[in-house]
Amino acid sequence: MARAVERIPAKLAKRAKQIQVLLMDVDGTLTNGEVTLLSQADGTALEIKTFDAHDGQGLTIARTAGLRTGCITGRESPALLRRAREMHMEFIYQKQPTKIPAYEEILKNAGVPESAVAYVGDDLPDLPVMQRVGLAVAVGDAVAEVKRAAHYVTRAHAGKGAIREVVELILKSKRIWEEMIDKARA
Amino acid sequence: MARAVERIPAKLAKRAKQIQVLLMDVDGTLTNGEVTLLSQADGTALEIKTFDAHDGQGLTIARTAGLRTGCITGRESPALLRRAREMHMEFIYQKQPTKIPAYEEILKNAGVPESAVAYVGDDLPDLPVMQRVGLAVAVGDAVAEVKRAAHYVTRAHAGKGAIREVVELILKSKRIWEEMIDKARA
Amino acid sequence: MARAVERIPAKLAKRAKQIQVLLMDVDGTLTNGEVTLLSQADGTALEIKTFDAHDGQGLTIARTAGLRTGCITGRESPALLRRAREMHMEFIYQKQPTKIPAYEEILKNAGVPESAVAYVGDDLPDLPVMQRVGLAVAVGDAVAEVKRAAHYVTRAHAGKGAIREVVELILKSKRIWEEMIDKARA
Amino acid sequence: MARAVERIPAKLAKRAKQIQVLLMDVDGTLTNGEVTLLSQADGTALEIKTFDAHDGQGLTIARTAGLRTGCITGRESPALLRRAREMHMEFIYQKQPTKIPAYEEILKNAGVPESAVAYVGDDLPDLPVMQRVGLAVAVGDAVAEVKRAAHYVTRAHAGKGAIREVVELILKSKRIWEEMIDKARA
Repeated sequence: MARAVERIPAKLAKRAKQIQVLLMDVDGTLTNGEVTLLSQADGTALEIKTFDAHDGQGLTIARTAGLRTGCITGRESPALLRRAREMHMEFIYQKQPTKIPAYEEILKNAGVPESAVAYVGDDLPDLPVMQRVGLAVAVGDAVAEVKRAAHYVTRAHAGKGAIREVVELILKSKRIWEEMIDKARA
Repeated sequence: MARAVERIPAKLAKRAKQIQVLLMDVDGTLTNGEVTLLSQADGTALEIKTFDAHDGQGLTIARTAGLRTGCITGRESPALLRRAREMHMEFIYQKQPTKIPAYEEILKNAGVPESAVAYVGDDLPDLPVMQRVGLAVAVGDAVAEVKRAAHYVTRAHAGKGAIREVVELILKSKRIWEEMIDKARA
Repeated sequence: MARAVERIPAKLAKRAKQIQVLLMDVDGTLTNGEVTLLSQADGTALEIKTFDAHDGQGLTIARTAGLRTGCITGRESPALLRRAREMHMEFIYQKQPTKIPAYEEILKNAGVPESAVAYVGDDLPDLPVMQRVGLAVAVGDAVAEVKRAAHYVTRAHAGKGAIREVVELILKSKRIWEEMIDKARA
Repeated sequence: MARAVERIPAKLAKRAKQIQVLLMDVDGTLTNGEVTLLSQADGTALEIKTFDAHDGQGLTIARTAGLRTGCITGRESPALLRRAREMHMEFIYQKQPTKIPAYEEILKNAGVPESAVAYVGDDLPDLPVMQRVGLAVAVGDAVAEVKRAAHYVTRAHAGKGAIREVVELILKSKRIWEEMIDKARA
């Protein structure tokens, strides 16, 4: 479930308030980590992905607040594409065997310094990007190595409000969360 | 899991016993908050929604007891439509970017005062309706802002008996729960 | 998860060892209680049901041990039909608005007294049958009224080993569990 | 969620460091134990299986480390086939009513002694193989009989990092985990 961000340490707030671009991994970060496959009569299988309603609302709030959002993933699916578009993601990189090339392309296109980028991940392939961005976040059920590399570990698990919690962390650090709440309820 | 409503504070019972119309949000309230998408071979994706058997039974009991039920949601899907019809919902409003217009139309059609309406929600877009109805309920895993705005927070989480718990709260406040149990088992 | 049945009170064992027919509800008893619907492009929705691998293995063991098994449900779906057949269920009653007629037909066809029948349920429509059988079982996440009507409440939740636990309870009471384990591993 | 393997008892490490082939059951071991069926309009039902992203990453790491992997299951589905191929499994045996014949064929093809094989399982049909291999592992939510027969019981449940934990156990025992982490993040 989504967990409210209560107090933000000064050092963390300093990192978070500089963020202009919020990037994330997909499986196990934006989804709940389940890789679900539907067997077809013709011998193939279709992929099912499970996202979280609170995360979606959070990414909508992020966009209203002017944050630019995106994802970098090794897999590829119409499910992700539909969900990413529903949440108005600007940067969508699929089929990336490693994540640095996409990350550097986003940096260039967005025209922001690395200190203005946050990245949320859960597993080993996320480490290279996490070691470069201004705010590295691990979801609550990330593997141990990723948690150790993060500036912040969410209390929520992946696909259960982790992304919402990151949005709240950033917007509260920028002191614009309350204003966004008012807009969201309008 | 569904949780029995044990004791109802007098102030809450006073609100609950006036309810004639029970409205609710869908994703994260009537469903478990998962947004699940099935990738298709043609590049599109189909939506899967997960409801709860105990909630369904609860809404059937609600209808037997004379409560009128309905939902207001920003999304649209055949899955919701089928489930809402299975549960004999009277008011079904999909694709509502904001919820007040649908709410006011329901008020007018039902011909009841706001004090006779209960609304169950989980996230920011639910706040405007919650601030007007006689009984505002937040599901157990609602975001903090919604819990603060509620007259009652369910012990059960969304899609795991939260709606059943609200039905029980209302019918116990009206002192007709036992009678409904007898009818349901008949 | 499946939970081992440790000690069986004498009174419960006396009921359990007489069981020859094991009947059960489906949604919220043999499944995990989720009612999942897949939206189709043509505006209809298909139903998805989630069963448990340990329950399936348990029902296979039950059959090897000579127990006859069956289900009575208000809904109807090819998913249940396929699963029931995989588990070699003998009595499959779908689309039953109330459960007593099917129950009485099974009694007649099986030619056993009510004391030889166990029934597992989770919600109000299960109560009439539970009040007649020799062994009435509620799953761990059944509603309060059903738990109160049961001779035994499983420690496992529905769709997470509850049925396996009932099979183990019956076969341990008959003192043939160990023998069945040996057969199952062979 | 995936759990880091902290300390490995010397006796367990001795078994684990000899492993060259990692075999496993599928339902309730590589998947979360849910047997999910999608009803079709023509009266048939399609099977859905849910795997874990962290397990997948773990099996990729295992392969990079030179471990050979495989599965033996009683069921058959395109979903498993696709997932097993994505994870580059070498040995895929479906529709096996009992597991010993497939196990012995793998032993012969791999050309390794039984002490070099690990097997992960969750239920009774897994016992015969578990009693022969060098390292028998039960997932955290295995049935009691399987846990008792195991050299190691994972802290993680099936479909929630259990296989990742076994890979980590083996590679840490071989003292090559850190090296693999470095490769995985590269």
